[in-house]
Amino acid sequence: MAVSWPEGVRSAGVAAGIKRRSRDVGVIQLPEPSLWAGTFTRNGAAAASVQWCRNRLSDAVRAIVVNSGNANACTGEAGQEAVYETARAAATLLGCEPEEVLVASTGPIGVRLPVDKLVAALPEAFSSASNDTANFAEAILTTDSVTKLAEAQTGNARVVGVAKGAAMLAPNMATMLAFLVTDAIVERDDLQKIVSAAVERSFNRISVDACESTNDSVFLVTTGRIPTTTEELRRAVEDVCRELAQQTVADAEGGSRLVRIQVTGAADEAAAVSLGRAVAASDLWRSAVYGSDPNWGRVVAALGSVDRDLHLDDLVVAIGPETLFDRGSPVGSSEAARKVMEADCFTLSCVVGNGPGAAELLHCDLSPSYVELNAGGGT
Amino acid sequence: MAVSWPEGVRSAGVAAGIKRRSRDVGVIQLPEPSLWAGTFTRNGAAAASVQWCRNRLSDAVRAIVVNSGNANACTGEAGQEAVYETARAAATLLGCEPEEVLVASTGPIGVRLPVDKLVAALPEAFSSASNDTANFAEAILTTDSVTKLAEAQTGNARVVGVAKGAAMLAPNMATMLAFLVTDAIVERDDLQKIVSAAVERSFNRISVDACESTNDSVFLVTTGRIPTTTEELRRAVEDVCRELAQQTVADAEGGSRLVRIQVTGAADEAAAVSLGRAVAASDLWRSAVYGSDPNWGRVVAALGSVDRDLHLDDLVVAIGPETLFDRGSPVGSSEAARKVMEADCFTLSCVVGNGPGAAELLHCDLSPSYVELNAGGGT
Repeated sequence: MAVSWPEGVRSAGVAAGIKRRSRDVGVIQLPEPSLWAGTFTRNGAAAASVQWCRNRLSDAVRAIVVNSGNANACTGEAGQEAVYETARAAATLLGCEPEEVLVASTGPIGVRLPVDKLVAALPEAFSSASNDTANFAEAILTTDSVTKLAEAQTGNARVVGVAKGAAMLAPNMATMLAFLVTDAIVERDDLQKIVSAAVERSFNRISVDACESTNDSVFLVTTGRIPTTTEELRRAVEDVCRELAQQTVADAEGGSRLVRIQVTGAADEAAAVSLGRAVAASDLWRSAVYGSDPNWGRVVAALGSVDRDLHLDDLVVAIGPETLFDRGSPVGSSEAARKVMEADCFTLSCVVGNGPGAAELLHCDLSPSYVELNAGGGT
Repeated sequence: MAVSWPEGVRSAGVAAGIKRRSRDVGVIQLPEPSLWAGTFTRNGAAAASVQWCRNRLSDAVRAIVVNSGNANACTGEAGQEAVYETARAAATLLGCEPEEVLVASTGPIGVRLPVDKLVAALPEAFSSASNDTANFAEAILTTDSVTKLAEAQTGNARVVGVAKGAAMLAPNMATMLAFLVTDAIVERDDLQKIVSAAVERSFNRISVDACESTNDSVFLVTTGRIPTTTEELRRAVEDVCRELAQQTVADAEGGSRLVRIQVTGAADEAAAVSLGRAVAASDLWRSAVYGSDPNWGRVVAALGSVDRDLHLDDLVVAIGPETLFDRGSPVGSSEAARKVMEADCFTLSCVVGNGPGAAELLHCDLSPSYVELNAGGGT
């Protein structure tokens, strides 16, 4: 899918030698100082780049510099200096202040970032930048197997997003790196509300391995050229975030199958999310998904680990159209459910009571290859 | 190890045909109505047997009947009836009330318990019962590869324990099945306090897969014959529980390596436990343990997911004697740490600050064979 940024926005992806894979440094360049908003990991060991960006939330942005192959997390003062050097080098090339440059990193934790290589690659990156997203989308990948792109239109305004995922993906904050650019005219406060709400219902509702990252960041930048309503923009941003989130789970490290957990009947939306997360985090259920085993008992055990007063007499669990537990009793056909699970994607629905709370979460299976992939090196 | 019960206590393990493995029904018979205490899963989908036992906490106990091969959880009214039939059949054989018979089950969730087979096996079980623990210890196993036995002496009083583990083991309650019998003279209230405290610092500090079970139960029965102090008994019960907990993790489903997480410097003990649990539950760290990869960054990310204000400047992470992160900076030798991790058991120590809170947790690695074992059937 060829996706272009909103008009005037340019990007590039080049090889700086930080990782073996060719492209590992990406840049996004805005045509002028632009309004932005973002959400970041709440992890107490947040990377140096996350700390830098959090402090820039009230500044305008001219460029974003991203590297893969190194998280620059738990790297002490050297890590903070590397972020500043990166921002300063980009600012010099663009004729702006370092504070107008955002920085993001992804890769292994605790390894010193070879900032000289990164800085040396920036002139080529900015000079080769174009309106196309492809090279940038490739440069930010780690163990992802495909690039993640999505766009939405609202009137004449566009929202374009690029993301990376793979592993260390947990559902209780802005998970992974995502970069969204729009051309919609919008107030700063509304922009932050829009990205926060969209992240809550997209990236915060996926799980690969329930492991929270030190580097998760979602950026939403606007060139502010096209009139639109806040509500229309909100919907478009949420659409793009949900699409990117789904692409991320579908391409999860070692994952072969996408599960759409639909929890309904909970006391409220937060309760539904927390019940769904417990199922998405269950290694036993995720192993069963890998083996196409309709082991609904593991789903119920996971629900019961969150809701101590779970009413089995109200509980209904179904895999696809096949109900397997119906208000207190096992029912249905395991064979039929097994067939449903053999697809690339299936729905697990859990009616947990009679309340109004509902939520949908996406997760993937746990496979032997996830373990093998993570048994040496990696993020 | 040949372990006998305290004097007068008898047990047996027989094959009732509930699972293919030979022995699947175990009984413990007390010489007279005995005081007991217990802790049970807090899971909202607790099994029928757990509900039965919770209601018996103020009754005296004459016998405990345990089956493996079927959890009798999420089995509706039929499950509750199966528990009562089991208790009644045992009571008839022993000439006591059904309420004096405790029942425990372990195995797959949501399958109707073949109670006729269980009841039919009881006469042979009680008539073959002896003071030896071996057959009982074998009968309660599921995918465990070895029996779990431990004993402690305090003066002339003994505490003898038998447990089973394997998978669906999570650290926030009485995890798995364990049966402890002592001959110490002790008040009912003290007995409950002793078992609750011991479980909190033993079974509640282990994790195989962070999946909480519907059937976890720990029983402590006393024949009340030998004088001892409450403090001595408390220590002996805790010793037995800790030993059984360690054996359980060492024999975890698919696990090949035991990790002893020592968290120190936390605000309090509860904070230390919660930090340790987060590391023990991290699939990324557990995969690294499987591959002997000293990926301390995943440890820090897990700590940071719990402590949002983690001070990296206070944090020290070491694998065995090898410090890898020292107050803000990566240090030490990965190769040396890798060698430490290649042992069957190693210590991961995390100094998280300057507080008085400390805790030790045990967990195991995540292996491809755990996934394979749980990809079809099982608990």
